[in-house]
This record gives sequence, C-alpha cells and structure tokens, in this order.
Amino acid sequence: MAEVQILTETDLRRLITLDRDAIQCVENAFKALASGTVVMPPILRLDIAEANGEVDVKTAFVPGLDSFAIKVSPGFFDNPAKGIASTNGLMVVLSAHTGLLEALLLDNGYLTDIRTAAAGAVAAKHLSRSNARSAAILGAGMQARLQLEALLLVRNIETVSVWARDRAKAELFARRAALDLGIPVRACPDAKEAVEGADIIVTTTPATSPILQADWIAPGAHITAMGSDAEHKNEIDPNLISRADLYVADSLNQTRRLGELHHAIVAGLIAANADFVELGAVVSQSAVGRTSDRQITVADLTGTGVQDTAIATLARTRAQSAKAGTMIST
Amino acid sequence: MAEVQILTETDLRRLITLDRDAIQCVENAFKALASGTVVMPPILRLDIAEANGEVDVKTAFVPGLDSFAIKVSPGFFDNPAKGIASTNGLMVVLSAHTGLLEALLLDNGYLTDIRTAAAGAVAAKHLSRSNARSAAILGAGMQARLQLEALLLVRNIETVSVWARDRAKAELFARRAALDLGIPVRACPDAKEAVEGADIIVTTTPATSPILQADWIAPGAHITAMGSDAEHKNEIDPNLISRADLYVADSLNQTRRLGELHHAIVAGLIAANADFVELGAVVSQSAVGRTSDRQITVADLTGTGVQDTAIATLARTRAQSAKAGTMIST
Repeated sequence: MAEVQILTETDLRRLITLDRDAIQCVENAFKALASGTVVMPPILRLDIAEANGEVDVKTAFVPGLDSFAIKVSPGFFDNPAKGIASTNGLMVVLSAHTGLLEALLLDNGYLTDIRTAAAGAVAAKHLSRSNARSAAILGAGMQARLQLEALLLVRNIETVSVWARDRAKAELFARRAALDLGIPVRACPDAKEAVEGADIIVTTTPATSPILQADWIAPGAHITAMGSDAEHKNEIDPNLISRADLYVADSLNQTRRLGELHHAIVAGLIAANADFVELGAVVSQSAVGRTSDRQITVADLTGTGVQDTAIATLARTRAQSAKAGTMIST
Repeated sequence: MAEVQILTETDLRRLITLDRDAIQCVENAFKALASGTVVMPPILRLDIAEANGEVDVKTAFVPGLDSFAIKVSPGFFDNPAKGIASTNGLMVVLSAHTGLLEALLLDNGYLTDIRTAAAGAVAAKHLSRSNARSAAILGAGMQARLQLEALLLVRNIETVSVWARDRAKAELFARRAALDLGIPVRACPDAKEAVEGADIIVTTTPATSPILQADWIAPGAHITAMGSDAEHKNEIDPNLISRADLYVADSLNQTRRLGELHHAIVAGLIAANADFVELGAVVSQSAVGRTSDRQITVADLTGTGVQDTAIATLARTRAQSAKAGTMIST
C-alpha cells in the first residue's frame, strides 16, 4: 500500500515563497532544459468554448530529479463574475523511477505564479543591464506584483512605473507596492509614459493586441513579455522582435506557436524556422547573452513544463522534511 | 474555500464495477463523440526512457456533463521486477463550468481497466453477430479477464478459448475463469487453435508484432484489438485490416497514429488518409455496422479521453451520493 502526500495551497504557501531559492530552482530548470536531456512534450490544451474556459497540461522529465510534475492549469474567464478566480489548478507529482503517485499539490495555481515570476527574474538577471535601476510594469494584476518582487531580488531597482488598462487598478497597485516594497512606484495614465527611460520593462497582461510599441524602447532596455501563453495573446509590437538586438525564448518550440515570436512570424517579420537562443542556453553560458549596454533584449516567456517539475520537486522535498499536509493510503 | 473529494482505489472499486451501467456509460461516451460536439485533444505523452517508462495524459470535454476528467496513466515496465504494477495513475475531475478541482480519483488505473473492458463490450454489442456463441481471448492478463467478463454481459457466450505466450498463465486463466464465470474455458497451446471457429476474438496483449494472422479468421468473426495504444504495439496482421469487411476505430485520429490501423498504413496496405467509420457512429446509427453474418469486422481500440471523462463523471456522481472518500478543503 502506497501513501500519497496531499498539500493544500495553505501548506504550499508556507513551504514555497518567491525568494532566491525559488529563482535558483527555476534557473536550474532552464539550465537542465539547455542540456538537451530534458523530455518536455508539447502542451496538451483543451478548450471549452461554451464556458469561456481552457485547460493547459504541462510536464517535463528532468534527469537527476527523482520526481516529475504534471501540471493542470485551468483558466475560466467568466469565473470572476461568479466570484471565483479565473485560474486554478494543481500539480500531480509522480516518481520518475516507477511512475507511482507521490504527491498532489492542490495549489490553485500558486506554484505556477511563483515559477512564472521566478522565470522573469532569471530573464532579467541574465539579460538586463547589471546596472538597471528603473523598471516599468505593464499590467497591475497579481502576476504584475510578483514580477516586480522577483525583479527586486536580482536588480537594484530604485524607481518603478506601472500602467494598466484600468487606471484605478494601476494606482492601487502603485500605492500598495510602494508601501510594501519601500520604493517609489508611480502609476502612469499611458503605457508609453510608463516605459519611457525604463531599464527593464515587464509586460504581464492578457492583451490580445500590442500594448508596447517598438519605437517607445530606448537603447539598453530589456523587455520580458510573459503574458503570451496562448496563440491569441499578444502584448508586444511584432516589430520589437525584429528590432531587438537579442531575442530569447524560454522554449523556442513554444514561442513559435504561442509566444510573441508567433505574432512576428504571422506578421511576416520573422521566418517561421528562424533560429533563436533559448534562456537556458544563456543561463548555462552555452550561448551569448547581452554584450553591450546599448542592446535591446527581449525575453519571450510562455511558461514551460520544466519549471513546473522544478518547483513541484522543491515543494515536495520540503513537504517531506516538514511532514506537511495529509497522507492518504491508496 | 472549496472542497475536493478524494477517492482511493478501494472507494472506487465499491462505487464502480464492470456491469451494464458501466457499459452504458461508455456507450454513451462514444455516442457523444460521434455527435461532433466533444472536444478531445491529442494525447499528451511523456517518455522516460531511462526508467523504461511512459505517461499518457488523456482528456475530453463532453457537452452536457458537468465535469470532465484529466487522466494520468503512467506505465513503467520495469516495475514488476520491483514488485510494483506496471500501470498506475489517477483521474483529476474538474468542473466543466469553472475549471475548479472537484475530485481526485486515486484509482491506480482501475477506472481505466473498467472503461477499456466496457469499450470492448460496446464494440462486440454493435459489431459481432448477435448469435455469437464462442469467444477467443488472446492474452491472459487482468484486462483479458475483464474483456471476457464484459463480453458475457452483451453476448450469450457458451465456450471460450484462451491463448497466451506464457502457457501456464493461460491455463491458470482458463481454470479461474471457468470457475468464476461458470462456462467452459479452454487454454490452447497456440493462438491459431484458440481462434479457430471463434465468433468473437479479443486481443489483449502488449505484443509488438502480430499474434493474430489474417488467414486464421473465418467469415462472420468479429475481432476487437485493444492492446495497441502506442506506436510500437501491434497485435494483428495488417492484412486483416485490409481484408476485413468492416474496420471500425474508436477514434480515427488515434488509430491512424497508434492503433492497428497505423501498422497497416506503415505496411502500405491502407492509404494514410483512408476514411473509416468510428465506433460512436455505429453506436448512434449514423453509420452502418455489420450487414451480414458472413462479414469479418474489426474494432481497433486505442482508448479515448471521452471514455475517461464518462467513467470519472459516473464515479464522481456516485461518490457524491454515497458521501464516499475524504473531503479536503483547499
């Protein structure tokens, strides 16, 4: 008889926070991905049009890790009107040696939020100027806040501007972030003003047409686009992909189909088979990253199964040490 | 705060058995699939070569059902040497309206076994001669036994023969089945002898090269091949696909890639885009099934996400009525 460890969101919030460990964990995941030994199949996607819903299932096997995760991410966009969050989900942790179920991480999407923000930090750490001091955040949701917090762990950010379609939300975001993080955060009425002179720009919205134009970007800036995780999502002007000195994908297979790159290909600005560097290659220094303070760099993050396996394995290991959660005999 | 219902294999064995309800449930699933409104994405498959393991993830949304399942099926083929079953897994049940997690069915593959056997019964019910009296089972594993039991629920089978590569296993199967089911069951030393004169033949092995030859099959026979759920698996002579009067797929998208049809296509006997009837169309009478007692019919079953959603929804509904399992607040 086997035992399965069941962890709720409350348990997982105690075990995993957005800190340097989480960033290191996701950085290692990208490094593993670059090694070529990770097995990461295409995302399974189920669309439920009549409920305005979708489910993504992501997974990856990372050699050397004793477990792997299968992550189920539903997004049902009529939920907020019912008083329920749009995104939810869980991670299923299986043994990489026997396939046996080891743990169920009932995180309601929390671990996804953390590993997504951590990937933003990894991108900024390896692609933005090391002397970056100002950040602009486009979007004012929960992930916008986490991206900002993640950024502060890897760069000495002194000033922040924020823009969101909903101006009141941007202002609330600015007040709260300034209070909690102890740095000046300014809400801007338009996106152009927000990004002016920013060393690092993070787009984190559900936009389906560009909210960031190519000609707004000054030399030396780094942009992380992390809202595009489905074909129809599009945050940045496709011209920015062709104009950037360095474009980096989390997974080129995915960004060609789902990311900002996809829109640049559709627009005919980039060849469908054009080759680009992946984040893991830059992290592991098998590819060259930023080479000058004048370059514009773009990181296109669609979210990968290898991040899920990495954060789930970290959570599982800590949960075992802490004897957290509930054990169920199966 | 939401509640998730957690059911173990023990709970699920109490709630779901291989009976007429289970067969009806799976029959309805195929009917829904034929209606064209089901959303069933391609199977996600992760291979872990170094552990001789694989994981399939299947899902389907069926309009009219309040829930849908995401089924995780690991198969780790070195497990038996460690005293662990090869196949395991669970089903994740989500609301079709909100995507919220409703239940976790920790069935270790039990519900998959039931819905797979039930599909065999649906195929036999709609494709074999109504006066079929004799059955041959190739394979002597747990699914072989379930296929036989399922068959007995839809046809008046009077004699059974069984063959397996491991003769002792076939003999044990025969003795046990005869005892439990109250009909004569004969173990045969070779497959040809076992299928001679059989009205219904079920192949249920992990064979990777044909164990059933086309020229062994007499007019009027029905064959259900249910072992082929991956590219490399192959139980029946590809000539049997071209020779059969009627070939029926559970899902043509899947059998073209994974099923017996796949091998007939690779052998150049069938065009890659050749069109065939699906089981759901026969069940719902939108396509013609068997039209004479002399026809040879073949059902090629790879296992579909719609069966998983159907059986999981049935289990979930019964579990709610019975207040079974453990509730966890998330």
